[in-house]
Amino acid sequence: MSKPDKYELLAETAKRRGFFWPSFEIYGGVSGFIDYGPLGIGLRRKIEEKWRDFFIRREGLLELDTPIIVPERVFEASGHVEHFKDPVVECVACKRSYRADHLLKEKTNIDAEALSIEEMDREIRKNLLRCPECGGELSKPKQLGTMFKTTIGPYVESTAYGRPETAQGIFIDFKRLYEIGRERLPLGIAQIGRSLRNEVSPRQGPLRLRELNMMEFEFFFDPENVHSSKFETVRAEVLRLVPAEKRLKGDEEPLSVTVGEALERGYILNPWSAYFMVQSKRFVDAIGIPPDRQRFHEKLPRERAHYSAQTYDHEVLLHRWGWVELAGHAYRTDFDLKAHMEGSGVDMRVFKPYDRPIRKTAKRLIPHLPVLGKKFGEKTKRIAEKIIRLDPNVVEKTLDAQGYVEIEGCKIGPEDVKIVEEVSEETGRRFVPHVVEPSFGSDRLLYAVLEYAYSRENDRVVLRIPRDMAPVQTAVLPLMAKDGLAEKALLLYEALLDGGFDVEYDETGSIGRRYARSDEAGIPVAVTVDYDTLKDDTVTLRNRDTWKQVRAKATDIPHLLRAYIHGEKEFDQLGEMVPGNSAA
Amino acid sequence: MSKPDKYELLAETAKRRGFFWPSFEIYGGVSGFIDYGPLGIGLRRKIEEKWRDFFIRREGLLELDTPIIVPERVFEASGHVEHFKDPVVECVACKRSYRADHLLKEKTNIDAEALSIEEMDREIRKNLLRCPECGGELSKPKQLGTMFKTTIGPYVESTAYGRPETAQGIFIDFKRLYEIGRERLPLGIAQIGRSLRNEVSPRQGPLRLRELNMMEFEFFFDPENVHSSKFETVRAEVLRLVPAEKRLKGDEEPLSVTVGEALERGYILNPWSAYFMVQSKRFVDAIGIPPDRQRFHEKLPRERAHYSAQTYDHEVLLHRWGWVELAGHAYRTDFDLKAHMEGSGVDMRVFKPYDRPIRKTAKRLIPHLPVLGKKFGEKTKRIAEKIIRLDPNVVEKTLDAQGYVEIEGCKIGPEDVKIVEEVSEETGRRFVPHVVEPSFGSDRLLYAVLEYAYSRENDRVVLRIPRDMAPVQTAVLPLMAKDGLAEKALLLYEALLDGGFDVEYDETGSIGRRYARSDEAGIPVAVTVDYDTLKDDTVTLRNRDTWKQVRAKATDIPHLLRAYIHGEKEFDQLGEMVPGNSAA
Repeated sequence: MSKPDKYELLAETAKRRGFFWPSFEIYGGVSGFIDYGPLGIGLRRKIEEKWRDFFIRREGLLELDTPIIVPERVFEASGHVEHFKDPVVECVACKRSYRADHLLKEKTNIDAEALSIEEMDREIRKNLLRCPECGGELSKPKQLGTMFKTTIGPYVESTAYGRPETAQGIFIDFKRLYEIGRERLPLGIAQIGRSLRNEVSPRQGPLRLRELNMMEFEFFFDPENVHSSKFETVRAEVLRLVPAEKRLKGDEEPLSVTVGEALERGYILNPWSAYFMVQSKRFVDAIGIPPDRQRFHEKLPRERAHYSAQTYDHEVLLHRWGWVELAGHAYRTDFDLKAHMEGSGVDMRVFKPYDRPIRKTAKRLIPHLPVLGKKFGEKTKRIAEKIIRLDPNVVEKTLDAQGYVEIEGCKIGPEDVKIVEEVSEETGRRFVPHVVEPSFGSDRLLYAVLEYAYSRENDRVVLRIPRDMAPVQTAVLPLMAKDGLAEKALLLYEALLDGGFDVEYDETGSIGRRYARSDEAGIPVAVTVDYDTLKDDTVTLRNRDTWKQVRAKATDIPHLLRAYIHGEKEFDQLGEMVPGNSAA
Repeated sequence: MSKPDKYELLAETAKRRGFFWPSFEIYGGVSGFIDYGPLGIGLRRKIEEKWRDFFIRREGLLELDTPIIVPERVFEASGHVEHFKDPVVECVACKRSYRADHLLKEKTNIDAEALSIEEMDREIRKNLLRCPECGGELSKPKQLGTMFKTTIGPYVESTAYGRPETAQGIFIDFKRLYEIGRERLPLGIAQIGRSLRNEVSPRQGPLRLRELNMMEFEFFFDPENVHSSKFETVRAEVLRLVPAEKRLKGDEEPLSVTVGEALERGYILNPWSAYFMVQSKRFVDAIGIPPDRQRFHEKLPRERAHYSAQTYDHEVLLHRWGWVELAGHAYRTDFDLKAHMEGSGVDMRVFKPYDRPIRKTAKRLIPHLPVLGKKFGEKTKRIAEKIIRLDPNVVEKTLDAQGYVEIEGCKIGPEDVKIVEEVSEETGRRFVPHVVEPSFGSDRLLYAVLEYAYSRENDRVVLRIPRDMAPVQTAVLPLMAKDGLAEKALLLYEALLDGGFDVEYDETGSIGRRYARSDEAGIPVAVTVDYDTLKDDTVTLRNRDTWKQVRAKATDIPHLLRAYIHGEKEFDQLGEMVPGNSAA
């Protein structure tokens, strides 16, 4: 491709306008790290707020925030020290390292994620792959740990890692949150925060980062009671699924199917996963990515993480990279809680009382000592002890069938042993909850939102970010910076700040240029203060997407803007239409 | 003290109710790390939002978010690899390590922060200090680096550190943000984020963390133009200062002085520092800490960080620990930008055009070659070159005084050289901006807010968090979970969620017990749905602090609550007083 693709165009706008750019620029950069500027932080915050509203507030999850630095024993127990590895090849000549699977995908289009080390090696040889930088020979692939390693405290060697996911912080805190939530299941615990992955040679801008922002939650439930009334409310919703079953037949075409069917046909293992996949689709839709550009792609068993019984990647179609994962939906079962029970020795089971205690009857054998004593003399005690250890049901049956049971060659008859029935009550059961985990990458979500918002009008950039997601809601622009217009505009600016809006004030350059700047920052409405404002206190509102203009009272702007941003009013309803102003 | 102090009481409540608790509990804990639960995250977010409003929105700062993992060359340039160290002593017997200065402070009450390694060693010997754990002998103190160390990427050794402050991310991005901000000074750049400090043996709960949450900004200004119109608006505001000048005389009593005076007397070096110290006081006041429990304590030259020309710690009085730093106000001058200019080779200076170009006149010497040639033959060229390099003013004076200047023994007279005056224009100057840095610790702010909110009524805990800072604004409580009350209450709960509130719904236990739970979580208003609600749609609002109750329409609750939380209405104005209900 000689024409710049959307990623290149967007990266340029993102850097110039302060959404994001590569970190450590003045020191030549280090790949896998990005910096966020004011607009990027604003947009990421909107995404996080929307996510928090969708999942934490509406689903009633508990939020948690745990450290990024985690002692080694946590990741030993969770299996990450053993399994959190990537296949790496090194160039024998220049010593540069590469992800073996990425190199294969890039150079031969082989989907190498599911291949073993030996298979990758074979493919590398077969396809005559060499170092992309110097053409040197490549080593045999090796599995290499990709957590950042460090030490806590001085002297004493106490190894720790940067967490590659926020989830382990949730698992090890499960019992405390279970208490804070007053011991109820299902229980969802969410964490929004940074994770660290020491990627081998990340080269996809904001899509593959060594320091990434995640939003995830672990939803704990009783595996013997997976019924979800919430699932029933979404049963008829259609998802675009690519189940492993299809993929194994070489078919990657998504299937449009209701989640009810998906569950019945076994495409999705449990209703909680299905419910959250629907919510996940709605959430991604709400931030500006149409459902027909989304799909759920099941991982093959060999592609799955070590903890997962089923994983669907929630993917989005991007211009340069094709289908890219935005979120993962993993059914982690009781893997992690059990691992930490073992690692820490702490009981992580929950106790669930039955609605009413369950009466259990059990039989017990009571040897008739006086009778036995007469028959067996000094062997009596030993024989009595052996009788006690027999299965009462078996003894009962055998006595019925043959009239005796034999112990050490002695025949024990019905006169030697009493079979009694005893009643006990069980008040509940103890078990390790199962978990489904929806896990989102904020950086990728942000990039996808920008790519879908990116458009060009008259050869300049307009970011059509959904209006409730825009990092800055409005710009206040005095037509001129003189004649009292700036003062008037600043009053409006202050009023909008007081109203809780994120506002830009801009008085330099022509008004056309300022509109262009504001479109490029994705600001949905620009407000212009002009000479009429001084007469009748009206201002012009300009729509980013249609360039239409309406006229309204300056004092009404805060509530008009609020109604527009929240989707309660459409732009035309905000005021008197100004004729002759709209997009070409 | 045998009575539990406020810290112990608070830590118990914080753990039980889910504000914060020590991390990695099931693995025995690692000091210096805490987890935040739902209420803690909510409160921290309120503190951050207030800070963002106070500083970023109202002061028009640009926000930035940079990585936590930073390559070594950044911290080599900034001086952190050399200077970010703590004095450590090790027990010769049990090998435990301690901060030498903390040990001295604790055991002898010597303020050791300003002592040299030799002086600390002398004090340790003089006071016969031993290992507090095993009584063993202590080693000589050593300066030990306290950044977390790691490696970026595989194989290739590329050392990196966890950032101990967010500031360096700001400095190395200065030029980019200066462009994004359209090249204007003053320019403030803020960052809210996590930092890592590998403390030696942290033992003060949320006050000394290895992983901490910071909010800081660097405010860049022209050192030749420190005038601040904002400073003029606060000139008369009084601060409680303990300037270094007083401390050097052994006087630690705060001085109440206007910032105008403080600047005149030289207690504060520049008006921008002074302005932000006032805002800092107002901010800390707004989150619930009265001004008379705050002070600004200047660091002595030896106590200051390596980059600072003046530092005031903004301190709060706490029950267990006395005066504790909440924020630092450092005048970092051009130290950091210059350091990164040197480290990276990138010019970080800004260009400031003069209002109008400045005309500069300069004299120049023009050798009269035909005349010189006749006099000096083949030496002419060399002599002419030497003439050019002379100072024209000196030549002019010398010719005036003695009629010639001498070069290589040759006399050069007025006929040999022409002195011309040339005019040039300078359009502006290039310089490295200076910086003042207000830097806040969110974890400490959160702890201080909780300590000042903590109170006991009738032997139970009431958290009197300022109502606009409370993590949960209201609790909806059906009097009974039957007769349709729960359904009615859930409708109100949903309406409040839609209104953007953080709401708790609680239907279990007696109403008294639920009020108690809600007081303990700092929820300002509890709303009770009872049998009258079913008749006339009114509900009871109960005040956390006075236990007074008023009655209002259920449909009015969202806007009444909003008005109360934002301080637009007092509690008594929210409805009809319910007689006989108030605090004992």
